Amino acid sequence: MRINLDRLKQLFNEMSKVGATQEGGITRPTLSQQDKEARDLLVSWMKEMQLNVRFDDIGNIYGRREGRNPEAKPIVIGSHLDSIINGGKFDGVLGIICGLEVLETLKENGIIMDRAIEVVNFTNEEGVYFEPLMAGSGLISGDYELSEIYKQQDGEGINFLDELKAIGYLGSEKNRLKEAEAFIEVHIEQGPILDKEKLSIGIVEGIIGFTWLEVTVIGEAENSGPTPMPYRKDALSTSAKMISAIQNSAQEISEYGITTVGKITAEPGVVNTIPGKVTFTVDIRAEELQKQDAGVNLIKNRLKRIAFEEGLEISINEINSMEPIQFHPELINNLIDSADELNYQSKKMISGAGHIASFMNNFCPTAMIFVPSIDGNSHSPKERTDWADIEKATNLLLKSVMKLDKDGINYKCVKAHTNLTYKI
Amino acid sequence: MRINLDRLKQLFNEMSKVGATQEGGITRPTLSQQDKEARDLLVSWMKEMQLNVRFDDIGNIYGRREGRNPEAKPIVIGSHLDSIINGGKFDGVLGIICGLEVLETLKENGIIMDRAIEVVNFTNEEGVYFEPLMAGSGLISGDYELSEIYKQQDGEGINFLDELKAIGYLGSEKNRLKEAEAFIEVHIEQGPILDKEKLSIGIVEGIIGFTWLEVTVIGEAENSGPTPMPYRKDALSTSAKMISAIQNSAQEISEYGITTVGKITAEPGVVNTIPGKVTFTVDIRAEELQKQDAGVNLIKNRLKRIAFEEGLEISINEINSMEPIQFHPELINNLIDSADELNYQSKKMISGAGHIASFMNNFCPTAMIFVPSIDGNSHSPKERTDWADIEKATNLLLKSVMKLDKDGINYKCVKAHTNLTYKI
Repeated sequence: MRINLDRLKQLFNEMSKVGATQEGGITRPTLSQQDKEARDLLVSWMKEMQLNVRFDDIGNIYGRREGRNPEAKPIVIGSHLDSIINGGKFDGVLGIICGLEVLETLKENGIIMDRAIEVVNFTNEEGVYFEPLMAGSGLISGDYELSEIYKQQDGEGINFLDELKAIGYLGSEKNRLKEAEAFIEVHIEQGPILDKEKLSIGIVEGIIGFTWLEVTVIGEAENSGPTPMPYRKDALSTSAKMISAIQNSAQEISEYGITTVGKITAEPGVVNTIPGKVTFTVDIRAEELQKQDAGVNLIKNRLKRIAFEEGLEISINEINSMEPIQFHPELINNLIDSADELNYQSKKMISGAGHIASFMNNFCPTAMIFVPSIDGNSHSPKERTDWADIEKATNLLLKSVMKLDKDGINYKCVKAHTNLTYKI
Repeated sequence: MRINLDRLKQLFNEMSKVGATQEGGITRPTLSQQDKEARDLLVSWMKEMQLNVRFDDIGNIYGRREGRNPEAKPIVIGSHLDSIINGGKFDGVLGIICGLEVLETLKENGIIMDRAIEVVNFTNEEGVYFEPLMAGSGLISGDYELSEIYKQQDGEGINFLDELKAIGYLGSEKNRLKEAEAFIEVHIEQGPILDKEKLSIGIVEGIIGFTWLEVTVIGEAENSGPTPMPYRKDALSTSAKMISAIQNSAQEISEYGITTVGKITAEPGVVNTIPGKVTFTVDIRAEELQKQDAGVNLIKNRLKRIAFEEGLEISINEINSMEPIQFHPELINNLIDSADELNYQSKKMISGAGHIASFMNNFCPTAMIFVPSIDGNSHSPKERTDWADIEKATNLLLKSVMKLDKDGINYKCVKAHTNLTYKI
C-alpha cells in the first residue's frame, strides 16, 4: 500500500494559490483573510473526505476519521497553514497535506483502523501579527493561557479574539484535542543537512535548545590618530577576539552544538574613533540541557577571561532561553523501523528550529519527520523540496500510523513540562 | 629671559569664558556669534599690545610686531580660536595665547628683533558648520580655492561668505600672509603619550598619514538553529578574524603604525540569523608614505586571504586618504637645541591628528610643539594640560623664535605639495 503523489500534489498546488506572492512564495499570516481562505479550503477538503470537522476555542481545525474502537486514543497528524510574509509554500502546509493523503490512502484501500486519526491545523504557528508564536499547540499542551492569547493585539490594535471571530473560526473549548496516542509532524528541515547529504528522510529525535546572551564590552573611545596601539582599550578589537572564541567553542559544546553572533553595534561608530562600547548577541544551542548550560558557562568564562586579559569591562545578560526537547524514544523507534521496512535511507537528527511538535511533546508522545530543504532555503519564496522526497515521507507516515494503530505507544508521556515560552 | 605664566593664564581664562558650556568646555564653531566674540577679544588684545592688526579675505586675523629689517621674512606663530560643539578650552587657543605671551615677553624686555613676528588666528580649523576643515591655512598654502570655500553652506543654507561678512571679518586679499621664514604651532597632543611618559614637551616631526578602507564581506544569511557550523558562510565570524588580523598588522607597518576598525554593521542583524553581510571601515596610519602604502597593501592582502580561506566574498574600497607630512628638519633641530638649552626633557614624536601646521608645511618651514593632554582627553570638556607644561612650551617657543631671528632657516621649503584634501 502506497500513497498517491499526484493526489497529494493536487492539494498542495491548490493550497499554494492562497496568498500567493509575485516572488513565488505565500503570505498567510494567522487570522488574516488569506488564512481564512486557506482554512475554508481545508475544511471543504475535509468535508469532501467525509471527515468529522470541528474547531476549538483558539481556532485549531480538526478533521477526524473515526476508528473501530471509540475508547482508543486517536493518532494525531498536523502542522500549520499560516505563514510569514512572503514565506515558502512548504513550511507547515506539508504536515497537513501529508496527513490528508494518508487518510485518502486508507480510505481507497478500504482500511478501517482501530484508532481514530485526526489531522490538525494549529492556529498561529508563525506569530506574525500576534504573539506568542505556536499559540495553538501551546494551548493544547497547557503551556499557554487562552485568556492571555485572546488579549494579544496586532499592529492595528485589534485583538486576537475579535480577529478569530471575524474570520469565523471561534469554536468551543469542548472541541479541543483532549488526548492522543501520538503526534507526528512532517516538516521541511529548514536547514541544509539532508540536502547536502542527499538523504530523503530525517527522523527527528528532538529540538535543540538555545540561550541568548547580550554582551556589552566597555573600552575607551579615543581619536584613532593620536592614540598608539599599546594605550588603547578598543572594544571592537576585543569583541573580535571574543567572536572568534565563541565560534571556536561550538564544537566543544556538543555534537549538534552551534554558536552564532547575529547582531553587533559599535559606538560611537566613526571611522577614525576607537570604539568605546560594543554590544553583541550570542545564540548558543545544544541538544541536551546539561550541555547547553555547560556551553553557556564555557562561553561566559571565555569572554570574561578575554575582557580581563585586555583590561576592558564586560557585562553579560541572558535575554532568552529555551530548553532542548527530546522526542518520544518509542515513537522514534517506530519511525526508524518503518523507514527500514520501506527501504528508505534515513538519518536521525536534531531540529535546529522550534515546531508545533515542541509543545505537543508536552501533551503526548511526539516525533517529527523531516524532508530536505533544497540549499537549506526556508522562510523564503526559494523554499523547495523534491516531490520524490515528499512521497517517501508520506509513505513513511502511513507505515508509522499503521504500526501505531497495531502496537500503540505502551506508556503515557511522563516527561516533565519544559519551559517553552518564547520571551521574545 | 622667561615668559610670564600669570599673564598668559589671564588671557587664557578670559578667552575660556567665550562660548563656555555648562560641562566646562567651550562651543565656538567658526563664524558663529561665539567665534565673533572670541575674535573681537583677540583683536582688542592685539591692539592693546600695539600690534599691527589686519584680517584677510578668509577672515584669518594677524597681529604683527615689526622687526628692524623690513626685508626679512616674518616668523609666524598661530593656531585657531574656533572649536567643536562642547570641545575643550585648550585645543587651538593655546597656540595663539603662547604666541601673544612671547611678544609680551619680548616687549617687556625691550627686545627689538630683526624679523617681524606675526601671531595668526586661522579661520575654520574644526570644520563644524562649514567644509572643508582647516580652510584658513589651506588657503594660505594654496591648497584650497577661496571661491569654493565662499560657496560652502551650513546646515541652514547660509553660505560661508555671508556669515564671514555678518560677523565683520571679511578682509582683503592683500592682507593674506605672503611669505614666512617659519611657522610654529603650539598645540595639545590630543593623545596619551606625553602624559603617560611624564614629559612636558613633544617636538613634532610630522603628521601621520592615513588611508581609510571600507570592507564588505558577503556570506550567506541563514537561520542559526538549523544551520550546522560546517555549512555556514558567516560574514561576522569571518570579519572578526579580519579585525584581529588588522589589529595585529599595526606593529608591522611602521614604528608609529596604527590600525583602527571604527565602524561595523552586520546584516540582517538578528540574534538568531547568521550575518550574511558585514561592512566595516579600516583606518591605517603611518608616518612615511611608503610604509603607509605598504601597510594598506599588507592589510588588503590579508583580508583577501582570509575571505578566500573561509570561502566568502570580499570587496575593499579606499574611501579617503592623506599622505604623511614631514616637518622641516632644520626647524625641528632648532626646537631640540632650544629645549636642550632650557634643560627641558623633550620627545620627538609624530602627530596622530591633522593640524593647521599640515597645510602651513606646504607654505614655509614648519614645526610644532606639543604639550600633554592629561589622560589623552581631547575634543571634550575634560581636555586639560598642566600650567607648568604650558609655561615650558611657551619658553621653548620664545627661545626658538630668538634663535630663528638670529640664524633663520637657511633654505626655502622645497617639499612638493602633498594632497591634503579631506574627502570626508
